[in-house]
Amino acid sequence: MSKYYEKLEPFLEKGMALTTATTLIEWDVETAAPMEAEENTTRVIGILSSEFFSAYNNDEVKKLVYKLQETKEQESLTPKQKGIVRELAKKIEELDKIPPKEYREYNEIKARAFGVWTKAKENNRFEDFAPILEQLISYNKKFAKYRQKRGEHLYDILLEEYEPGFHMEQYDVFFEKLKSELIPFIKKISEKKDTIDKSYNEKSYEIEKQKEFSNYLAAYVGFDFNRGIIAESAHPFTTNLHNRDVRITNHFYKNNLESAIFSIIHETGHALYEMGIDDELTQTLLGEGTSMGVHESQSRFYENIIGRSKEFWIPLYPKLVEQFPEQLKEVSLEQFIKGINKSVPGFIRTEADELTYSIHVLIRYEIEKMIFEEKVSVKELPKIWNQKYKEYLGVEPENDTVGILQDVHWSGGMFGYFPTYALGSAIGAQIYYHMKSIMPFEKYLEEGTLTPIRDYLKDKIHKYGKMKYTNELISDMTGEAFNPDYYIRYLKEKYSKLYELEDVTIEE
Amino acid sequence: MSKYYEKLEPFLEKGMALTTATTLIEWDVETAAPMEAEENTTRVIGILSSEFFSAYNNDEVKKLVYKLQETKEQESLTPKQKGIVRELAKKIEELDKIPPKEYREYNEIKARAFGVWTKAKENNRFEDFAPILEQLISYNKKFAKYRQKRGEHLYDILLEEYEPGFHMEQYDVFFEKLKSELIPFIKKISEKKDTIDKSYNEKSYEIEKQKEFSNYLAAYVGFDFNRGIIAESAHPFTTNLHNRDVRITNHFYKNNLESAIFSIIHETGHALYEMGIDDELTQTLLGEGTSMGVHESQSRFYENIIGRSKEFWIPLYPKLVEQFPEQLKEVSLEQFIKGINKSVPGFIRTEADELTYSIHVLIRYEIEKMIFEEKVSVKELPKIWNQKYKEYLGVEPENDTVGILQDVHWSGGMFGYFPTYALGSAIGAQIYYHMKSIMPFEKYLEEGTLTPIRDYLKDKIHKYGKMKYTNELISDMTGEAFNPDYYIRYLKEKYSKLYELEDVTIEE
Repeated sequence: MSKYYEKLEPFLEKGMALTTATTLIEWDVETAAPMEAEENTTRVIGILSSEFFSAYNNDEVKKLVYKLQETKEQESLTPKQKGIVRELAKKIEELDKIPPKEYREYNEIKARAFGVWTKAKENNRFEDFAPILEQLISYNKKFAKYRQKRGEHLYDILLEEYEPGFHMEQYDVFFEKLKSELIPFIKKISEKKDTIDKSYNEKSYEIEKQKEFSNYLAAYVGFDFNRGIIAESAHPFTTNLHNRDVRITNHFYKNNLESAIFSIIHETGHALYEMGIDDELTQTLLGEGTSMGVHESQSRFYENIIGRSKEFWIPLYPKLVEQFPEQLKEVSLEQFIKGINKSVPGFIRTEADELTYSIHVLIRYEIEKMIFEEKVSVKELPKIWNQKYKEYLGVEPENDTVGILQDVHWSGGMFGYFPTYALGSAIGAQIYYHMKSIMPFEKYLEEGTLTPIRDYLKDKIHKYGKMKYTNELISDMTGEAFNPDYYIRYLKEKYSKLYELEDVTIEE
Repeated sequence: MSKYYEKLEPFLEKGMALTTATTLIEWDVETAAPMEAEENTTRVIGILSSEFFSAYNNDEVKKLVYKLQETKEQESLTPKQKGIVRELAKKIEELDKIPPKEYREYNEIKARAFGVWTKAKENNRFEDFAPILEQLISYNKKFAKYRQKRGEHLYDILLEEYEPGFHMEQYDVFFEKLKSELIPFIKKISEKKDTIDKSYNEKSYEIEKQKEFSNYLAAYVGFDFNRGIIAESAHPFTTNLHNRDVRITNHFYKNNLESAIFSIIHETGHALYEMGIDDELTQTLLGEGTSMGVHESQSRFYENIIGRSKEFWIPLYPKLVEQFPEQLKEVSLEQFIKGINKSVPGFIRTEADELTYSIHVLIRYEIEKMIFEEKVSVKELPKIWNQKYKEYLGVEPENDTVGILQDVHWSGGMFGYFPTYALGSAIGAQIYYHMKSIMPFEKYLEEGTLTPIRDYLKDKIHKYGKMKYTNELISDMTGEAFNPDYYIRYLKEKYSKLYELEDVTIEE
């Protein structure tokens, strides 16, 4: 083994352990920690983040990484080691120019922002969140400027973090296509929205019974309870300590059956990715999903393409009716399928139907672009937000809680993340048409045999971790580069059929 | 401020953050983590423990601590800083002679041992636990030998860790007294054991309702749910991240009402101590209970002296009957009080009545002494264990699950810890007689006003953290050095009354 690589290992280990510890603390903050713990715990997170910073970003590591990138040393490395050095070099590039003090301050602000956002959302007071949001934006700008190369856009630097290789150049084309193709289509569909009755969804569903079914669904889709746990939080999410400790959360509303069902399928999609990472890669810099877009391609593939299909529910629906006989005994499978796919332009991204979903993302993309590329003040954001909802979806948020305050991401300093949700959905559609062409996809669902689907995804995507990036994964799997047309085709086919439209042209 | 002390601060912070992270991971392992996580998580714990090791045990810190112990520097320090330097010097002394590699190995073994013990206990297979127990003992011996000064006993080095200033010299006297005074008394009492009927305790008590009452009790005794959480684990315990995040666990048995009740009061006693630490001290080396003995004095004071008194239950018992009307409607308060104090020599320490309790501890003390001071093989331990139970308590464990495998401590490498349970009980009794002499103690309980009691304990003990050690705390509070006679007096008074004995002499 390369002696330089060997010298690198203690630093890699330390970085890994600190990341795991911080991840667990953050999970705990969102699922368990007591209310008044925040300030003291924030200090701990700040210190650990400094330690993480200096584990990777120090002269010795830099020298080793520099050495290990030389052609001769590269030859002595295994592909895995090469990948780790590549990822480490990227991390160092990210951290190198940030003064340690600012990095720690930023992490402390992030740790505090979650609580501020939670309260602001609860109280519908954007003005309470605005000051810390401004700080988060300003740190992100500052950090991106430290790294900015000549001619590089600030927002591109952020986008690259969540989706290597996807910048405004790519996203602009992608979102323009969605905008021009989907907005008129959504308008046409929303005229017919009253043809579907889903009033059953707002009946009263006992929380405990919802939880039971949610856990059953997770296991049905493939969540391995020996390698993961499920908890509750305001906003469902997935986190992973390693490939044998993957955690998801769900939330429950008495008068909304769907919410918990599709959240758990979504998060299980994420969890399967992380549980499927190769044992050789877990606990290394290659040991997690390659990008947020690919991650969302898995979660949204399970949530929508699988989870909202009729075939998926053929074996499952009787079980759901059994769980809630009073509420569902009069609701046929057909009505349920129409209900869970009903398209109604609304305020909340995470509760949006599949068709309008990407427009929610488009709006966030455009706003983030304005934040980082134009001069727009935080104060103006709610107004811009509401205008865009009005313009694209024809609805205006009643208040900021269901408007600009709805998502947790910005409170975690995640700017540039949102676009990956739409990208992931589009990748999912491409995977879908590919899988349909090579296996009896619908038949598997009807028979309740999800294993071949799960195994195929594991074999083509999950196990690689960050050994392959998005474009390589897609081409190696489907034989074709990323192509958003599949997504538009999928949505138009599905919704034309559902709403019995006749005159929709689908270009293939 | 001393410039040496200033230089020390980043190291102190780092050590604190790593301790907090490791504490949280350990809490998580026992309350939440999935089954297969163990191996990977153990690696993380190992790495963090190495980092902790080197945060304190490095040349720079050693130099600073050495400097800060000089008279001149001492004068420039605040009492708090002095205390921190003193505690740090102790930690360094503990770690200094241990090779880092061995320290990490030991921590990894400890992390693994919990799972091994759990399974061995479940399957009643001491032979499965024996090999790792042997390793844990051998590491503890090795580490103690590294630190051993001429003429010093190995076991004393371990005892000192949990109770500064209490060694075999003190404990031998203490336990001899318990042995000679209590064993004959227990024998006398146990002849009358059938005079108390507590069959109500084994009726069927719905777990969910037990949980509700358990949480109610915790709050009643003073647990602050804004600064702590309660979870479930096999063996109830308390842990603290800082004074605003204190966590306790409880366990529930359908056919044992008492178990959960007294466990929650016990753990709340621990929690109050940690929640009561001064804000100035939390997250420093002085920011936790001063010793395990004083900790147990609080938990066992609440559990037994308060929690098993009639006065405590006068306002509470109706609430319990309301929670379980079917099971308790025929049980009078008097019968309940007799029931919860019934003395029956049994196998399980944590389920033992107050009178026989310290004999369980005595047995562990004698066995640990043999392990560290005599030549005894791990293989022989179950036999020795069972013999001692036979000899002192007149009962012989049916199997190792209810015998030598019952306690978690050894699996965590904690040798020298057990004696503090008995010591704590004795300190609690001394505190009791003191408090009775200065406040209407029983009246407060009867009225359900626990605040003055809690505040007094906070003011005299909790807030100091490690600023004062055991003996100083006891004398400052009670005006007298530690005196085990109060404990014997308390037990004899209480049990003579309960069993209506007439001929017991109590020496005052």
